[in-house]
Amino acid sequence: MSDLPQLSGEQVHELDRAHVFHSWSAQDLIDPLPIESAKGVRFTDYAGTEYLDFSSQLVNVNIGYQHPRLVAAIQEQAGRMATLAPGFANDMRSEAARMIAEKAPGDLEHVFFTNGGAEANENALRMARIHTGRHKILSAYRSYHGATAGSIALTGDPRRWASEPGMPGVVRYWGPYLYRSAFYATSEEEERDRALQHLRDTIAVEGPQTIAAIILETVVGTNGILVPPDGYLAGVREICDEHGIVMIADEVMAGFARCGEWFAIDHWGVTPDIITFAKGVNSGYVPIGGTIVSGAIRETFGPKPYPGGLTYQGHPLACASAVASMRIFEDEGVVEHSRRMGEEVIGPRLAEIEAKHPSVGEVRGLGTFWALELVKDPQTREPLVPYNASGEAAAPMGAFAAACKERGLWPFVHFNRTHVVPPCVIEEDDLRAGLDILDEALEVADGYVG
Amino acid sequence: MSDLPQLSGEQVHELDRAHVFHSWSAQDLIDPLPIESAKGVRFTDYAGTEYLDFSSQLVNVNIGYQHPRLVAAIQEQAGRMATLAPGFANDMRSEAARMIAEKAPGDLEHVFFTNGGAEANENALRMARIHTGRHKILSAYRSYHGATAGSIALTGDPRRWASEPGMPGVVRYWGPYLYRSAFYATSEEEERDRALQHLRDTIAVEGPQTIAAIILETVVGTNGILVPPDGYLAGVREICDEHGIVMIADEVMAGFARCGEWFAIDHWGVTPDIITFAKGVNSGYVPIGGTIVSGAIRETFGPKPYPGGLTYQGHPLACASAVASMRIFEDEGVVEHSRRMGEEVIGPRLAEIEAKHPSVGEVRGLGTFWALELVKDPQTREPLVPYNASGEAAAPMGAFAAACKERGLWPFVHFNRTHVVPPCVIEEDDLRAGLDILDEALEVADGYVG
Repeated sequence: MSDLPQLSGEQVHELDRAHVFHSWSAQDLIDPLPIESAKGVRFTDYAGTEYLDFSSQLVNVNIGYQHPRLVAAIQEQAGRMATLAPGFANDMRSEAARMIAEKAPGDLEHVFFTNGGAEANENALRMARIHTGRHKILSAYRSYHGATAGSIALTGDPRRWASEPGMPGVVRYWGPYLYRSAFYATSEEEERDRALQHLRDTIAVEGPQTIAAIILETVVGTNGILVPPDGYLAGVREICDEHGIVMIADEVMAGFARCGEWFAIDHWGVTPDIITFAKGVNSGYVPIGGTIVSGAIRETFGPKPYPGGLTYQGHPLACASAVASMRIFEDEGVVEHSRRMGEEVIGPRLAEIEAKHPSVGEVRGLGTFWALELVKDPQTREPLVPYNASGEAAAPMGAFAAACKERGLWPFVHFNRTHVVPPCVIEEDDLRAGLDILDEALEVADGYVG
Repeated sequence: MSDLPQLSGEQVHELDRAHVFHSWSAQDLIDPLPIESAKGVRFTDYAGTEYLDFSSQLVNVNIGYQHPRLVAAIQEQAGRMATLAPGFANDMRSEAARMIAEKAPGDLEHVFFTNGGAEANENALRMARIHTGRHKILSAYRSYHGATAGSIALTGDPRRWASEPGMPGVVRYWGPYLYRSAFYATSEEEERDRALQHLRDTIAVEGPQTIAAIILETVVGTNGILVPPDGYLAGVREICDEHGIVMIADEVMAGFARCGEWFAIDHWGVTPDIITFAKGVNSGYVPIGGTIVSGAIRETFGPKPYPGGLTYQGHPLACASAVASMRIFEDEGVVEHSRRMGEEVIGPRLAEIEAKHPSVGEVRGLGTFWALELVKDPQTREPLVPYNASGEAAAPMGAFAAACKERGLWPFVHFNRTHVVPPCVIEEDDLRAGLDILDEALEVADGYVG
């Protein structure tokens, strides 16, 4: 006898419409698709239509759906101990922290667990403020850090607008983005140098002694898979060191194999003071996130209480799923696989696609983390749809997405971009099949060029 | 072959000290007890010492530990579908929302899921602000609403101090608390009337048209199990109606059987505009929380996008555990049992204890949600330890807690109070045994009187 009812697709839909309040949406203008099952890199609706997932849901199902070993570990731990308060010590919490510390760079050895990425960033900023005794946080335009009052204030994209005025003390700067350079740069090196100079200038006019932290997505995620030029992150590290500013790398989306590394920042060999994580650490099978902090920050809170916490912190079931997921990553070489797929399959194929389609202004990425920037005009680089467009104005992107879905591919679409962000475990055959569909569907986008 | 390692108690402890950053603590001054197992209303450390849990961890394990049906449901759903993005419809999400809406009072029919209570309150305040077009939120002193930037700003206890200045727009008021009345009241009726008058006066001087919401814990939890006088909540409802203010009932701790009702507010037959929940909905077996909103608020976000969300919203594994937990509550009569234990066992026995011990200034509560207020002097009501005391100043409470633990009872201690908050499923025998230990341990507290 199961306590879980069996509903028809119709019932799922009807109850959803009657009782589920959806995020980031006008409730009357959406019609959420009921999904019946998911396995590997695909999910299936109640009509039996199967989709190859090029979105990893919200770029979190890095290990794919229903990985048998990960499912078994959750089932085992559920039978051992589902929950335990943060004040105690627990085997899965200890082991998850040990493994994360082992994989994190430098002296980032201490893990404060949360339920997700937003809370990870909330706690990172609180730690940085108390550690430095300073109040301001520098965060980038074109960034997303979560939707709680602190993390949405850190966010640099339009999702924060409706929550303003919010938490005070956030100062925004422009990060490197050569294709749409804020600095009129024409090469990666120039973009890097000018972006660093801009950061230095901003710090000078804000007052370095007022700045607690600089937060950045190591590779900017939803706002465009903006891969920093070589040397940029090392430059930020240097600026932080010079002024005693805490460097926070938000790796909620970029970490855990997404960029072909355990942590994206390993790609550049830089050690920040804090890394925040969630999503890929256990592919969201159980909600978890956290902040990984340096020895120096840990020392601040040795004799002095850290003023933050949450009921489900270091949740045994969630930690067990993180432990199992990291073990699977190790055994199956998921990190290396993701890197190889980027280098050998996605990168070369997207280069072909870019050359072929006038609507593709630029492709960029690494690992299984790629963006195609769609444009109306490859010369002027005018985006295919305006910034933050919705409704009719976003129709060209809607048409492109529909063309993907008709062909069995579930794309990730944001503003004028589509991202290629499949589960990191995706096999070469599936990846090529998905990229072929993308290639076809881009003809729809080409129709809007010129 | 399991992916979950077997660690010794020593290893758990060592790795915890090396890698786990604990909440609300000075990391060098704590020594978290490793817990090996938990079952029903008890948990056991690696030395084999068993504790009867009068804290329900953080007042969240309402159903007790490792309930076999709840464990089985989690295992079953893990095998079906662990995770799915919020943008889709999902059977467990639909069913959990339906059941919660069914149990919620009035027209609170729409559920926005979150990972926990803090995010539930964050989203409640965002909804209220946009729904009303106003900015200010009134929240009570002696309250706790979470530790993210918005929810900690709502919080009225010392935990917010280190995060100030935080999110602007929060105005604080005093709630009813007859034992330490802010209004010099001498009866429940007088306290009620004066607390409502104080709220009206505060609204008048703040400007009713600037106030989006009043948030309150239906029964104040960690800050003292402050049960509102009959008529208080109806009075707040009336004030909100008069001024178009959204009434938010935070039931993260008080809901789901804790107060002997599905929702604590049912005890007084009042319908707020928003209820926030977490903890008891699934006893924290998988992280989940949410806000339940009225038809009117849902309508605001019919044509207009709601600007908030999170990756693990409406998480299938978490929702399945909520569905199963609510079914178990129904089948086993957990709500009624909690009410009966309060009326027939805890209330009467605590009255005896109050009469016997000079250190017990007052007992109060309902369901399985009770507080004993410990005092140095029953006449002056001077607290046994000062407000927000720590270290040496809090020694009397430490000695009391140690006396409980020596006798195999794990107490909940906060400031000068101990709360009787066992799992709501606790059987009468266990409850009486725990109350007997409390009775003995209070002799330690008596030693500090006078």
